[in-house]
Amino acid sequence: MTVYLVGAGPGDPDLLTVKGARVLAAADVVVVDRLVDRRVLEPIGPGALVVDVGKTAHDGASWRTQAAINELLVAHGRTGALVVRLKGGDPYLFGRGAEELAALVDAGIEVEVVPGITSALGVLALAGIPATLRGVASSVTIVSGHSADGAETKWRHIARAGGTLVLLMAVANRMRIATQLMEAGVSATTPVAVIERGATPYERRLASTLGELGDLHVEAPAVIVVGDVASHLVRSDSEAVLSAALSPTE
Amino acid sequence: MTVYLVGAGPGDPDLLTVKGARVLAAADVVVVDRLVDRRVLEPIGPGALVVDVGKTAHDGASWRTQAAINELLVAHGRTGALVVRLKGGDPYLFGRGAEELAALVDAGIEVEVVPGITSALGVLALAGIPATLRGVASSVTIVSGHSADGAETKWRHIARAGGTLVLLMAVANRMRIATQLMEAGVSATTPVAVIERGATPYERRLASTLGELGDLHVEAPAVIVVGDVASHLVRSDSEAVLSAALSPTE
Repeated sequence: MTVYLVGAGPGDPDLLTVKGARVLAAADVVVVDRLVDRRVLEPIGPGALVVDVGKTAHDGASWRTQAAINELLVAHGRTGALVVRLKGGDPYLFGRGAEELAALVDAGIEVEVVPGITSALGVLALAGIPATLRGVASSVTIVSGHSADGAETKWRHIARAGGTLVLLMAVANRMRIATQLMEAGVSATTPVAVIERGATPYERRLASTLGELGDLHVEAPAVIVVGDVASHLVRSDSEAVLSAALSPTE
Repeated sequence: MTVYLVGAGPGDPDLLTVKGARVLAAADVVVVDRLVDRRVLEPIGPGALVVDVGKTAHDGASWRTQAAINELLVAHGRTGALVVRLKGGDPYLFGRGAEELAALVDAGIEVEVVPGITSALGVLALAGIPATLRGVASSVTIVSGHSADGAETKWRHIARAGGTLVLLMAVANRMRIATQLMEAGVSATTPVAVIERGATPYERRLASTLGELGDLHVEAPAVIVVGDVASHLVRSDSEAVLSAALSPTE
């Protein structure tokens, strides 16, 4: 009885790990989140049961709490089926993978974590942005901008730590976060890059500044990068890649 | 003429991406770093030229500067061969991938970045440590502890940002870093986990505290995790996984 907690990566099924693709192809049951790109489900065999636990409340009774998801994983895990719990990005970075692992272990079910590429870094790289760069940024902080985490997040110190800042789940609170960063001394002219629906065919890239972030039209899900490396954002065509890579900021 | 900058992931070849494995199998030339686990080279075809640019100086003339590596990539790229530049972890997180990309673009050679799982997150997940955890850590800062970056790293603010701290290339400076963090107010009893040679058969896991980190025997390469999530470190056998997952910190 093994349940695999698998990171689906940022969206492109080519960025799933070799192991993730293999257990997905062998799975009897796949429990999947809303934020997982549908193309990542392609390796799943025709006989597998796919349970979508991420459906939003408006389509009826299918919306599930974390406790209900845990119970579902335990129930399927107990049948002896090969169960894959597929989560967007990496299961252990804002993925609540540790909570699901604890519930499964508590029930005596063997669990294995298969890491994935977090959107916070993968989406950046695909958009031309290095999270760190010699002489520019020697650290990166990845932080949730979700309101529930707002109180405990020490924006003042995050702002002054001086590295690249990657905001996830921060679209709704982007104005408040930008204000707090500027109040902590980060310049309004600091480059900001916004990548909506990164690593999917619907990806949209926006170059901005911290001062303009609050007024920028952004739709979730998006990755927001604050820091000098954000100036490396390139458009999707190779000409733009070329000009950006040759820009004075390199 | 395309050069692929591929992230090899943390060590286990199963954690290479599907795309990384595919371009590696098709490669004419593979330029590889010392820190890349040799098992990751298995998909490479028998006819491919493998250039190891990470050999240390003691074995003669094979040690290369970054400029020499850039020149090598450009020279191979110009031949029209399918060139893979394989880098440990992710090429855009302390990987100097952006510098190599710039050199190649400058020479008119098309480059594609294939992200990999950074050791900073992948090695943690495999050792049972979630980088973030609801109610415990809502951010993670990944920072280089290399001496060259020491001056510009603002340990005081990093310490007070309050999230999980992941130190890479910090073995040599661990005493100094621990002292600076404690001077900035981080408790000496803060849990620390050290994972040497993560995701390899030689992996070694150590549970410690910030106060003890300086005196702990650690060999590079290692990932050092500072923060309450570090208490989730588990040993490799499943019994230990079970007891750790059931511990009061969960």
